[in-house]
Amino acid sequence: MADPRFFDRAGPFTLAALARASGARVWRDADSDKLFRDVAPLETAGPDEVSFLENRKYLAAFRASRAGAAFVDLEAVGAAPPAMALLVAEAPYKAYALAAQAFYPMTPAAPGRAPSTLIDPEAIVPEDCTIGANVVIEARAKLGRRCQIGANTVIGAGVVIGDNCLIGANVTVSHALIGARVVLHPGVRVGQEGFGFAPDPAGPVKMPQLGRVVIGDDVDIGANTTIDRGSGHDTVIGAGTMIDNLVQIAHNVVLGRGCILAGQVGISGSTRLGDFVMIGGQGGLAGHLKIGTGARIAAKAGLMRDVPAGATVCGIPAVPIADFMRQTAILQRLGRKKDGR
Amino acid sequence: MADPRFFDRAGPFTLAALARASGARVWRDADSDKLFRDVAPLETAGPDEVSFLENRKYLAAFRASRAGAAFVDLEAVGAAPPAMALLVAEAPYKAYALAAQAFYPMTPAAPGRAPSTLIDPEAIVPEDCTIGANVVIEARAKLGRRCQIGANTVIGAGVVIGDNCLIGANVTVSHALIGARVVLHPGVRVGQEGFGFAPDPAGPVKMPQLGRVVIGDDVDIGANTTIDRGSGHDTVIGAGTMIDNLVQIAHNVVLGRGCILAGQVGISGSTRLGDFVMIGGQGGLAGHLKIGTGARIAAKAGLMRDVPAGATVCGIPAVPIADFMRQTAILQRLGRKKDGR
Amino acid sequence: MADPRFFDRAGPFTLAALARASGARVWRDADSDKLFRDVAPLETAGPDEVSFLENRKYLAAFRASRAGAAFVDLEAVGAAPPAMALLVAEAPYKAYALAAQAFYPMTPAAPGRAPSTLIDPEAIVPEDCTIGANVVIEARAKLGRRCQIGANTVIGAGVVIGDNCLIGANVTVSHALIGARVVLHPGVRVGQEGFGFAPDPAGPVKMPQLGRVVIGDDVDIGANTTIDRGSGHDTVIGAGTMIDNLVQIAHNVVLGRGCILAGQVGISGSTRLGDFVMIGGQGGLAGHLKIGTGARIAAKAGLMRDVPAGATVCGIPAVPIADFMRQTAILQRLGRKKDGR
Repeated sequence: MADPRFFDRAGPFTLAALARASGARVWRDADSDKLFRDVAPLETAGPDEVSFLENRKYLAAFRASRAGAAFVDLEAVGAAPPAMALLVAEAPYKAYALAAQAFYPMTPAAPGRAPSTLIDPEAIVPEDCTIGANVVIEARAKLGRRCQIGANTVIGAGVVIGDNCLIGANVTVSHALIGARVVLHPGVRVGQEGFGFAPDPAGPVKMPQLGRVVIGDDVDIGANTTIDRGSGHDTVIGAGTMIDNLVQIAHNVVLGRGCILAGQVGISGSTRLGDFVMIGGQGGLAGHLKIGTGARIAAKAGLMRDVPAGATVCGIPAVPIADFMRQTAILQRLGRKKDGR
Repeated sequence: MADPRFFDRAGPFTLAALARASGARVWRDADSDKLFRDVAPLETAGPDEVSFLENRKYLAAFRASRAGAAFVDLEAVGAAPPAMALLVAEAPYKAYALAAQAFYPMTPAAPGRAPSTLIDPEAIVPEDCTIGANVVIEARAKLGRRCQIGANTVIGAGVVIGDNCLIGANVTVSHALIGARVVLHPGVRVGQEGFGFAPDPAGPVKMPQLGRVVIGDDVDIGANTTIDRGSGHDTVIGAGTMIDNLVQIAHNVVLGRGCILAGQVGISGSTRLGDFVMIGGQGGLAGHLKIGTGARIAAKAGLMRDVPAGATVCGIPAVPIADFMRQTAILQRLGRKKDGR
Repeated sequence: MADPRFFDRAGPFTLAALARASGARVWRDADSDKLFRDVAPLETAGPDEVSFLENRKYLAAFRASRAGAAFVDLEAVGAAPPAMALLVAEAPYKAYALAAQAFYPMTPAAPGRAPSTLIDPEAIVPEDCTIGANVVIEARAKLGRRCQIGANTVIGAGVVIGDNCLIGANVTVSHALIGARVVLHPGVRVGQEGFGFAPDPAGPVKMPQLGRVVIGDDVDIGANTTIDRGSGHDTVIGAGTMIDNLVQIAHNVVLGRGCILAGQVGISGSTRLGDFVMIGGQGGLAGHLKIGTGARIAAKAGLMRDVPAGATVCGIPAVPIADFMRQTAILQRLGRKKDGR
């Protein structure tokens, strides 16, 4: 059960209610009126808790679990312990997420402003926002309804933020237009000058960075991630894009809708991604590339060329995944052969 | 045109004035008295805006551009649309940067101190500095003339900062001596303890970190970059060096003058770089190495050995670029051969 | 000598006192009553300063050093300059660290609270803590004795922190239980939501992140490192673990005791490390892996599979070090052969 010092729980819920909340269906002869008090991982869940199985790595834990119920797909039904009620869904992890949201609804913070908040008289901050201690909101910044801003965060002059945004503590935002329901985790930096200069024997000549950062609705940006503003064009983060911690997005980069960037990814200046592109952890992209819709770039990849829509690439320099697998296999075979093994 | 919510524009300027500001020359029969109102990228520039072409990837955009004028090199002259005036320069990007600086001059912030600033009575902060909200300046710290310090930044005891430095919001500086015209972007950490300890069966024994960070003039350090202080020697960043976001500089590292470090580079302890070394994004250097003047280390490289002056190295482990190209080509060839393609 | 603007020195000490403090022994005929005033690197140490030699890369500097004494192992004794007194230890770097601690003892800050501190009435903060300017401590947070919290740091609701912790400036902590003697360097982010969602055609469905971060005693976490809270399980950092700057630890990761993670390492969700695992700089681990006790993962490695206890792995994808060396050698040989060199 989630630590009550940090989380407030709703419920209990019947299986039937959980099925409704999650879009799953109650499997056969389960008691759909039985009450469940919480969600929990397979290893720790008890008889009045609900768990899930999706990644087959955890099949042994599933077979041994004392969970009273679990979200599963059809194929996992046969492997369930006899006492476990089943909620069957095509995407059990998603169904479990929806059930967890029912147990732990986002409770909006009470509106208000810490006394130490510094809001410029020319800034617009609706009364229903929650503004933390020592927050600085500069001239002409404009917040949407019901935004929450964490302590010690700085919102620069002219920044526009949509409704229902959650901005963590110690965040810095400048030169940015941000949509609705955007989440910025602690330590995020948005809108600072990009890395732009012309090399010169007398020392680098700085290029004024005259663009903005434009962030669509429903974007989530991880802790200590940095997103530079454009140099002329804007830096754009498409709606619904999820960005993990410590990611670097350089100036003029354009991410489409629904992209997923894992931790420590880096994207160099002016590279453009289509929609639904996925990049694994620590992947790096050179500048001025075009990445097609639905492309997948493996963790650790070093990308030097454009990638067509739907392709999967791996390696340094990155190549199509089939080539990468073959290169890796050959290299391993050669290594063994030369040694006569 | 740059968003007036974020940027104040000067001008308009004649072609002749832009040529003077940038060191370019007006090409042949252009009307050097025509007024230009702004700089803009090729794709969006209109008839009273100035753009540029340097990277040939954008040649198609150049041919199709409606820009009234553009900075180009001699070879690009022939490709220009007929209505476009040309400003010819050996380094068009640099010339454009100087023109952009003319349109968007850095306007110094009004001197002053936010009421919530906490400046130790023993600190020295000239009256012409601009000190943001909630800034903390500890005992005996000493700022130069006309420094700007962003909100929620902490300047530790004894730190010395030169004239005309720009320090962003949410920055932390300790144990450091910083030159003039240095820029620290938001979230930079300078001067904290390095990663120094002696392994021991009873638990690591921490080595007191007794050095400083010494930063030369005209250095630029990107958002959320971390620079640890030396353990005995100092950590040194040479004058004119440009460091991008999320870079890690360990204790005792010495960077020469005019180095360029792209995003997410990491340099391990006690490694020393000569002048004008370039490191591509996500490059990593082992500790205790010597990198000669003008060496170039590719993006994603993993460097385990010293690099002579002027060399270019790639790969993991990093090898001279010719070797890397050959290795990559052979591997790709073998991959194809084994499959009979 | 360490800059007195930043460091307060104790001493002087006799060789005999330094030998006692460090567990080393005075070599033969040295004058054990002579006074030493400081520790210093080999290159700069003078006749009344103590240095050390451990890494043989610095043997030339050792031979040329003017240091009055040095910590060395037995094999280095013969290489010492004639005027240098020797302190012999099995682990000279550790002995030097202990001597340096004697010269530069950690002086606890004077207890107190800056007037701008915001401590919730329901938080527990002992009187002997030192709380910096603009620090925010939220409801029901509980600090141990003698903790120091740097300026502009935010400690979230319900967080528990043990005795004698040192938390730097501009840090954010939430949803965490932290042991004693833990050090969080500036800009650390602990306890924010992990990167958890179920992909869905209608947009990602966020998984409530219901776990905590549990940090053992004597852990050290580098600047701007991010540690997400668990999603159901906790994220756990074992006692005595040392983590460098800009490291990413995803939700549900478990690190054993005494692990060492160099800069910019990234560990994906639910991966579990045994005790005393070492990971080199920029190493990356996929999710849901098990890494055995004492395993070593090379810098830059990309780990896709479990690693048995005691193994050393390198490369992308990571393989046992012997395989990696062979692959690298073969590739280099082939490269040369094909060119007839």
